Amino acid sequence: MALFITFEGIEGSGKTTQIRLLAERLGKAGKAVVATREPGGCPIADMVRQILLSPGSAALVPRAELLLYAAARAQHVDEVIIPALKEGKIVLCDRFIDATLAYQGHGRRLDASLIDRLNQLATGGLSPDLTLLLDMPAEKGLRRARQRNEDQNLGNEDRFEQESLAFHSRVRQGYLFLAEGQDRFRRIDAEGSAEEVARRIAAVVDPFLEQHSS
Amino acid sequence: MALFITFEGIEGSGKTTQIRLLAERLGKAGKAVVATREPGGCPIADMVRQILLSPGSAALVPRAELLLYAAARAQHVDEVIIPALKEGKIVLCDRFIDATLAYQGHGRRLDASLIDRLNQLATGGLSPDLTLLLDMPAEKGLRRARQRNEDQNLGNEDRFEQESLAFHSRVRQGYLFLAEGQDRFRRIDAEGSAEEVARRIAAVVDPFLEQHSS
Repeated sequence: MALFITFEGIEGSGKTTQIRLLAERLGKAGKAVVATREPGGCPIADMVRQILLSPGSAALVPRAELLLYAAARAQHVDEVIIPALKEGKIVLCDRFIDATLAYQGHGRRLDASLIDRLNQLATGGLSPDLTLLLDMPAEKGLRRARQRNEDQNLGNEDRFEQESLAFHSRVRQGYLFLAEGQDRFRRIDAEGSAEEVARRIAAVVDPFLEQHSS
Repeated sequence: MALFITFEGIEGSGKTTQIRLLAERLGKAGKAVVATREPGGCPIADMVRQILLSPGSAALVPRAELLLYAAARAQHVDEVIIPALKEGKIVLCDRFIDATLAYQGHGRRLDASLIDRLNQLATGGLSPDLTLLLDMPAEKGLRRARQRNEDQNLGNEDRFEQESLAFHSRVRQGYLFLAEGQDRFRRIDAEGSAEEVARRIAAVVDPFLEQHSS
């Protein structure tokens, strides 16, 4: 049962934790799962990720940023996602095409049709079967992301965490706008404990898997 | 007198040497010159260059390669070339849009109209005033490139030098095809000593500068 499930949401919305919890649970239930992330997910795309997220890349211009995301995505799709789907696995991916529309389109106000064309080129037309939007107010997410950096002594925030609250609020609104227009989206309330959010995700994912395994 | 002059040609055609010689000569004549190269030319694009040229990137898929070139170019144009031209400098650039058409289009047989669109996006419409195609048979260029690597103990060839002679012959034919269709191109015979080739370049560049300074 090949299925491609993406997780979207602002910084601090808990995507990484929830993907780990879901991958563990599905793995215990005997499913073949691949958990991956963008930008990155394979050695070449990870090198692109370093450029994209490094605070040293402050000079990065929006056109170059957009093209780097597309490059990393093209490599990740061909090298990781498509092969896993061909082997019948469930692929859980932390960010995908919608992140580019939310961050570069709504956040940086780049042209959405240009982003759509680059997404199309990068993915070769591959679209998620299900997209979980982990939604919470931007100020709460940012607070969690900064707390995490402090707890883990990560020192420098990444280039996106340094953006303003107004930027992250536009990103969140962008995600909500994308979610309204498309059937594959499910909005998940991402406030509360990791266990609570995991239960909300299970309530969406389990019936979806059930439906697609029959 | 802002002028944007690009150097194109297969591996081993002597672009690096000729750009250095021309930059020195123009500098001595009192001109403000910026010598730069693609992929690269600024810190962010240099990081992309490392991914593109590393033999470790053998898994790089053609779509990702094309997008990485476009990303590096967008950054280089905005951060280096346009500011230098705005300051009235002469910019000498080792490879530009035509390299992508020759290598990825003719060499890898990717769709030329897609490359044109990505070039357009990457450059924001900037086109060279003059393009010097340093032309020689592919087997001679490759032999020189490999000899250079040996002499300088560069060990590993880069990802392009490892390509077949047939690939490099297609790239050369691609360059000749591009040169025929556009006024800004001048084909320079790149065989012979560096001094001989420099004289052939001077015979093209000096009248061109003369014409554009009046």
